[in-house]
Amino acid sequence: MPTLHLIPSPISKLIELPAFVEELRWIIVENLREARRFLRANFSSFPIDECHFLEINKNTLNLNDISRFLKKAQEKNQDIGLLSDAGVPCVADPGSEVVRIAHQLGFKVHPLIGPSSILLALMASGFNGQQFAFHGYLPIPENEQINRIMHLEAESSKRTMTQIFIETPYRNNALLERLLKTLNPSTRLCVAADIQSATEEIVSKTVRDWQHVKYNFHKRPAVFLLYAG
Amino acid sequence: MPTLHLIPSPISKLIELPAFVEELRWIIVENLREARRFLRANFSSFPIDECHFLEINKNTLNLNDISRFLKKAQEKNQDIGLLSDAGVPCVADPGSEVVRIAHQLGFKVHPLIGPSSILLALMASGFNGQQFAFHGYLPIPENEQINRIMHLEAESSKRTMTQIFIETPYRNNALLERLLKTLNPSTRLCVAADIQSATEEIVSKTVRDWQHVKYNFHKRPAVFLLYAG
Repeated sequence: MPTLHLIPSPISKLIELPAFVEELRWIIVENLREARRFLRANFSSFPIDECHFLEINKNTLNLNDISRFLKKAQEKNQDIGLLSDAGVPCVADPGSEVVRIAHQLGFKVHPLIGPSSILLALMASGFNGQQFAFHGYLPIPENEQINRIMHLEAESSKRTMTQIFIETPYRNNALLERLLKTLNPSTRLCVAADIQSATEEIVSKTVRDWQHVKYNFHKRPAVFLLYAG
Repeated sequence: MPTLHLIPSPISKLIELPAFVEELRWIIVENLREARRFLRANFSSFPIDECHFLEINKNTLNLNDISRFLKKAQEKNQDIGLLSDAGVPCVADPGSEVVRIAHQLGFKVHPLIGPSSILLALMASGFNGQQFAFHGYLPIPENEQINRIMHLEAESSKRTMTQIFIETPYRNNALLERLLKTLNPSTRLCVAADIQSATEEIVSKTVRDWQHVKYNFHKRPAVFLLYAG
């Protein structure tokens, strides 16, 4: 039974891949250029030209292509690697459709350890790590966004649950201002920016104490967390 | 400003720590014996006897002790390491209280990449990784547990959210039976057992298809995931 290996890629700092990845010749990637560069950075003589690549991304996710690629590898009894664009595959990216089809076809699925900005932010927030939820992006229209923030805060309080979400980086400061205006002063708020890079900055305070912080998260990849438990 | 480094420990397979960990002399651990063994496995001449250790766990979590330890290190301008028992610190373990106090005292907090059975299970499930929630343990009394399962399924359907939870390993089979009886046939259910070990087994199917699976997860650490999106 062939295996689908879920292979992490770097968020910012280069990561080291286990040796067996050098043997893979069937590889599904989100970004072919980045994937090639990363594989060559890990294995200088990685034989790119001998590999079968399938590129997937949110906009061109063709389930038939994925299915056909997996079946071909399976016929030849070949393992497959799935590489995401940044961080671990299948968390906040389209890779989970590949995994779903692999399970249906009878592949073994093997996840590898790697960076997840969501998980690293949760660890570093100091908020409850025994109950937490990741919501992706909040709605953009002002009223909907405010309602959603208030709902997340109420749920966090009711279930002692850490609430995690993200924003398009150029809107980070606007979202943070809205959070500080909307949330209760005693609610705790964390922004984890530039995770894994030299400029990594993780600020975790009550909304009250945030008022004294000089911040600028403009265009920096960031994870937002709130806790009202 | 000293740093609190959040250091992962192995789930099953040994992991490699970055070199700077060898320089730390102030270390907070969940299990002192395991921590010593792990540090020596990574750095054969790690000077255990020169280190200041503080042991914390769920039952003996003394916030004053933690605060005192952090302040002492801070006075001497020393970085601190926080090591969990298995996997990354602060996810499904008591470490987050240490991080909370560290933020209050003005420490920089630096999370390191490491294994999380929850995240690895989510990746390998093939379920939605763009919205997900971890709930810890479900209630034990039968009626409460059934109600909770039905509630999680309804929420998963409403919000296209993957629901993740765990069970005391000797009750895994009982929980799985209850899930299969309670959930809709089209709901998808994944059990990820023995993550990171040689016997790792990840089964992800609709409830309908689970009826044909011979399984035994008794006393094996496992993560449960359901998705009704």
